[in-house]
Amino acid sequence: MSRIVVIGGGAAGLKAAARARRRDEEAEITVIEAGSYPSISRCGLPYYVEGFVHEIENLMQTTYGAVRDVEFFKKVKNIDVLVKTKAKRIDREKKIVEIERNGKSDELPYDYLVIATGSKPSKPPIPGIDAENVVHLHSAEDAEKIVEMWDEGAEEAVIIGGGLVGMESAEALSKLDMKVTLVEIMPHVLPACLDAEIAALVEAHLREKGVSVLTNSKVEEIVTEDGTVSGVRIGEKVIPAQLVLVATGVRPNVELARNAGIEIGETGAIKVNEYMQTNDENIYAGGDCVENINLITGKPAYIPLGSTANKHGRVIGDNVTGGNSTFPGVLGTIIFKVFDFTVARTGLSEEEARKLGYDVITAVTPSPDRFHHYPRSKPIRVKIIADRSGKLLGAQAVGLGVIDKRIDVLATAIQMGATIDDIANLDLAYAPPFSTALDAVIVAANVVRNKRDRLVETISAEEMKKKIESEEDFVILDVRTDEEKAGNPINDSRVIHIPIDRLRESLDKIPRDKEIFTVCQIGARGYEAARFLMQRGFRARMVDGGMAILSVLLKGNKESQS
Amino acid sequence: MSRIVVIGGGAAGLKAAARARRRDEEAEITVIEAGSYPSISRCGLPYYVEGFVHEIENLMQTTYGAVRDVEFFKKVKNIDVLVKTKAKRIDREKKIVEIERNGKSDELPYDYLVIATGSKPSKPPIPGIDAENVVHLHSAEDAEKIVEMWDEGAEEAVIIGGGLVGMESAEALSKLDMKVTLVEIMPHVLPACLDAEIAALVEAHLREKGVSVLTNSKVEEIVTEDGTVSGVRIGEKVIPAQLVLVATGVRPNVELARNAGIEIGETGAIKVNEYMQTNDENIYAGGDCVENINLITGKPAYIPLGSTANKHGRVIGDNVTGGNSTFPGVLGTIIFKVFDFTVARTGLSEEEARKLGYDVITAVTPSPDRFHHYPRSKPIRVKIIADRSGKLLGAQAVGLGVIDKRIDVLATAIQMGATIDDIANLDLAYAPPFSTALDAVIVAANVVRNKRDRLVETISAEEMKKKIESEEDFVILDVRTDEEKAGNPINDSRVIHIPIDRLRESLDKIPRDKEIFTVCQIGARGYEAARFLMQRGFRARMVDGGMAILSVLLKGNKESQS
Repeated sequence: MSRIVVIGGGAAGLKAAARARRRDEEAEITVIEAGSYPSISRCGLPYYVEGFVHEIENLMQTTYGAVRDVEFFKKVKNIDVLVKTKAKRIDREKKIVEIERNGKSDELPYDYLVIATGSKPSKPPIPGIDAENVVHLHSAEDAEKIVEMWDEGAEEAVIIGGGLVGMESAEALSKLDMKVTLVEIMPHVLPACLDAEIAALVEAHLREKGVSVLTNSKVEEIVTEDGTVSGVRIGEKVIPAQLVLVATGVRPNVELARNAGIEIGETGAIKVNEYMQTNDENIYAGGDCVENINLITGKPAYIPLGSTANKHGRVIGDNVTGGNSTFPGVLGTIIFKVFDFTVARTGLSEEEARKLGYDVITAVTPSPDRFHHYPRSKPIRVKIIADRSGKLLGAQAVGLGVIDKRIDVLATAIQMGATIDDIANLDLAYAPPFSTALDAVIVAANVVRNKRDRLVETISAEEMKKKIESEEDFVILDVRTDEEKAGNPINDSRVIHIPIDRLRESLDKIPRDKEIFTVCQIGARGYEAARFLMQRGFRARMVDGGMAILSVLLKGNKESQS
Repeated sequence: MSRIVVIGGGAAGLKAAARARRRDEEAEITVIEAGSYPSISRCGLPYYVEGFVHEIENLMQTTYGAVRDVEFFKKVKNIDVLVKTKAKRIDREKKIVEIERNGKSDELPYDYLVIATGSKPSKPPIPGIDAENVVHLHSAEDAEKIVEMWDEGAEEAVIIGGGLVGMESAEALSKLDMKVTLVEIMPHVLPACLDAEIAALVEAHLREKGVSVLTNSKVEEIVTEDGTVSGVRIGEKVIPAQLVLVATGVRPNVELARNAGIEIGETGAIKVNEYMQTNDENIYAGGDCVENINLITGKPAYIPLGSTANKHGRVIGDNVTGGNSTFPGVLGTIIFKVFDFTVARTGLSEEEARKLGYDVITAVTPSPDRFHHYPRSKPIRVKIIADRSGKLLGAQAVGLGVIDKRIDVLATAIQMGATIDDIANLDLAYAPPFSTALDAVIVAANVVRNKRDRLVETISAEEMKKKIESEEDFVILDVRTDEEKAGNPINDSRVIHIPIDRLRESLDKIPRDKEIFTVCQIGARGYEAARFLMQRGFRARMVDGGMAILSVLLKGNKESQS
């Protein structure tokens, strides 16, 4: 009879325990959890804060409503979960875990040990960070504390960090009618996830929803009065706040493992092989405390996610009961909802791909998410990042419409080694309520193919913005309708406006000696115009993503100047 | 300068013409269209009938609102569209198309000819089928006629054919407050698309929404009074109807091609190679008049869809302008919305896979479509069909929740040659508003892996239903909670009810000499129970899909008996 000890009652640990039990009815399985709850769904915390999920206990229920508490695990799965129990030391020689429980020390012998110690919020060295009313959003207790502070009248919040948790928190706190300021030290939000022009769309949406977004901004001090937060200082300016939420990422909990001589990888998380096994063959590790292999680069990456932790748990549960399962790695697929926007990414960003030396081709393609006359049709933008060989490297998508489907399709494609030609030929499900006849991902792949085949030359909206801000001489050829132009004009003397249906008869109005940048609303007509002009001997390039991207960048620029 | 003639102004023809123009500004491009409109979106017709799409003209607009009429094609794309023009004959020797226009004959010379003649509704040999008020839903005119008949007071409708158009029409006519009867000759609706147990879920939903569904039923006569429909006769029974909609599929329009000696494939549609080229190297064909290669079987299949037609058009547009593009084939991915349900499938059905000799493993897995406490979380069922080698062969999904994403992921995976192990490791986008930590497709793949690895034996809900109807001796072990059982009991004396959390202490209540079938609501607890009992020496199998499937089958059975 084998003894399996799991340190950590989160997703990875409990999944490993449950899977082990299903495979081996005889094993003695014990889970050690430092907190009071096993198996809280941390991903659900922002929705609890905002009131969408009503009870914190909801985050620990099964789909059929059973609370996954200590009794549940004992009765249903015959797993001993020891809550409020600390693992103090792993003795690999004796194969025991030294624990502390109710103030007493004890020892748990193991045949297989599973380290699933999770992560903790990172805590940047900002003066005042230990003050009252400085919170994270990492545990059930954090979430309850935030709700409490709101109950007690906190009206202004500053979120430090424009990553995923920062985004979700910005929405949650705004929904509680707090005035929210989001501070990001890098030039754009989601710096680890998104390229600049996609991040700009997210920032614009946050501002539209009343969140003040400060990029390139460093919080130098959390200002306190009598130990309680009153604001944060950025340069000379103090932003008032009764609540400061630090969302600057998480770090793996590896002290216990490191002290036991378990190998730590270059990312600072526990290093495991494809069997989720550490350098000790009887010790496995999974969840937020381990690093994963990035499937594109082949290099270790620290991307802790609940979905990945669950997969780890299953593999570990197999392998501690005589199985032979493997976990290949991750793509860094991330999704979140922020107000009416969904934002997602997978694989490499354009910036990452360029740094790695790929000969990158990208396209940002705005599309409706379904047949454009079908009710609830909403705009989305899909960015595809490919190598000139055609290999799909990454994707980003953002908008009011359905995003998750597009990223999941592209993540699946990348993981299976697809090229942009494969994407263009995917037999995706089409009916008007669900997509356009050629789905947004196929349209995006076709645009990348056109670029690869040099059918069209493009300029990114980001570069176009820079040109517009320069004194250079060129022509912006706006081929939108009169109405579209009137509703959202480009105020620049270098603009010539000729709607696409008058372009063929108006060639004499376009100078042959200047570079022409064609622009429409979402790109299709800009492409049409650029192709036509190229074939007529003009130096024409289309603006990637059209006004759907460019006008947001131009506006964002104005706002940050003001 | 090359002359390109396109016969047919639908999706494939116009896409081919537009793509050709983008690649070749010099070519002379002419499109011949028999009807009055170029480029109607036929897939949108049911939504026009139901009033969701307000104007028939909406179905021919671009995303920026321009009407894609004759003038649009001339001005924007320099393409001549000849509407109300018939192609009478193709003379391959002289490379001309003989046309008839405004009562006059004419000839169009071509260097490249594109046949995109589309499809027509099939017309089963039922007496009375030519009567007034017998309609199809294939053209804009059909849709307008249906709306007109409704305006004139038609209150009862019979739809002949339970396929995709039958489904969408059932909803559209119900939304117009008509009493709808759907008649299907085969044992279940969607016989070409879905396996029996998934079709049963769709039928149950139609009935719930007030549609009378008659399967195994043949319309022997359309009964008329004074040339106008008054009902349909099935056996001795006449079902009153003022509108009969024939939705028994479509057939390719191939007469013109066949008469010109163009090779017709075994499906009755035009045979093309991967370049979309017919047996005449100067003649290409695409859209609803051609057959495609099924990517799994490698055999020709006739699956006409607007999405496929668009892909064909692009490939043809490339190849008639010196390109070298290919179209690999299709998976038979289909999706439709019917009332609150979405139904979709891709690849092979279980029935098809078995006929082809695969050693099939399947699982039907009910899941919530997102984190179960997130608002708007809705149930879905995902069926995965795999070969014992692990190769993914097909998938079906149905439910109130998000279906299209799951089918698109699985279609992408199948097209890229994925195994169920690949699916289980996909790095799909997870956040509570979009999926469960392990998405429904991963859960389904894991269930199939458990079966492959013989961790659990299962019985399909379909087989379980048959056993329940038999006199055999066995035990159904219902492991749901007391409340779940009370809300939806299995009324059978062979049921033993032990909630999962009492199972371990109640082993003595379960007979060791009988076969045990474990059942819960969606399958997870049934699996847990079966694993536990197997390891304790019982002969236990879980009911695939749990009560989520079984109770629908049992109820459906009662209804068809009454």
